[in-house]
Amino acid sequence: MPRLDDDLVSALRFDQNGLIPAIAQQWDSGEVLMMAWMSAESLAETLASGRACYWSRSRQQVWRKGDTSGHIQKVRDIRADCDGDTLLLLVEQTGAACHNGTRSCFMTQLTEAGARPADDTAHSAGK
Amino acid sequence: MPRLDDDLVSALRFDQNGLIPAIAQQWDSGEVLMMAWMSAESLAETLASGRACYWSRSRQQVWRKGDTSGHIQKVRDIRADCDGDTLLLLVEQTGAACHNGTRSCFMTQLTEAGARPADDTAHSAGK
Repeated sequence: MPRLDDDLVSALRFDQNGLIPAIAQQWDSGEVLMMAWMSAESLAETLASGRACYWSRSRQQVWRKGDTSGHIQKVRDIRADCDGDTLLLLVEQTGAACHNGTRSCFMTQLTEAGARPADDTAHSAGK
Repeated sequence: MPRLDDDLVSALRFDQNGLIPAIAQQWDSGEVLMMAWMSAESLAETLASGRACYWSRSRQQVWRKGDTSGHIQKVRDIRADCDGDTLLLLVEQTGAACHNGTRSCFMTQLTEAGARPADDTAHSAGK
């Protein structure tokens, strides 16, 4: 992954808790895997290691994704949105992104059919 | 779009401001278009109209996307993540999702090359 541009990073808008939402997308399939939060520290760690590193709001600490599970995310690119207040990470996901063991965290369809596992194919760009 | 399941909606975890982040993804290409916030009211409006409807934090009001620009998002499906605190909308985007006129809001690469328009192809699932 290329090094981040310091000026661009400093222009990011972290929220009142010092966090910015980061969407992780599998770079080749387009599957949206998860959304988590980054602190400036975890963003710097992501940059230094080339592995996605978030801020755990429940544990209030830096969370190097995959340290426990092995399900790391190698970061290929990072994009900011037009407001500079959301990040999009294009990643190579090893194994399951979700702690429940599914590839993506977005497995619940909010339909009248009730809570059922979403069709995996629908997460992969409708294919 | 199917009607939302009331029990599932009531299980969603809105934040301290009564909002939940919603990622909009083009249903067929997989392109991540934008991230915005929904209130319970705007989620209900999304359901009623089949069009993505957000909460504008800057204007502090419901924002029916496309009312001014015509760039509406027809919602094909809504997914919740494992924690119930983030939504993924699979949409049919008319025109540009971004107010800057680009298809996606995520057009800034955080690389040493500086702020330059991201390659459109890289937003479309690496294709």
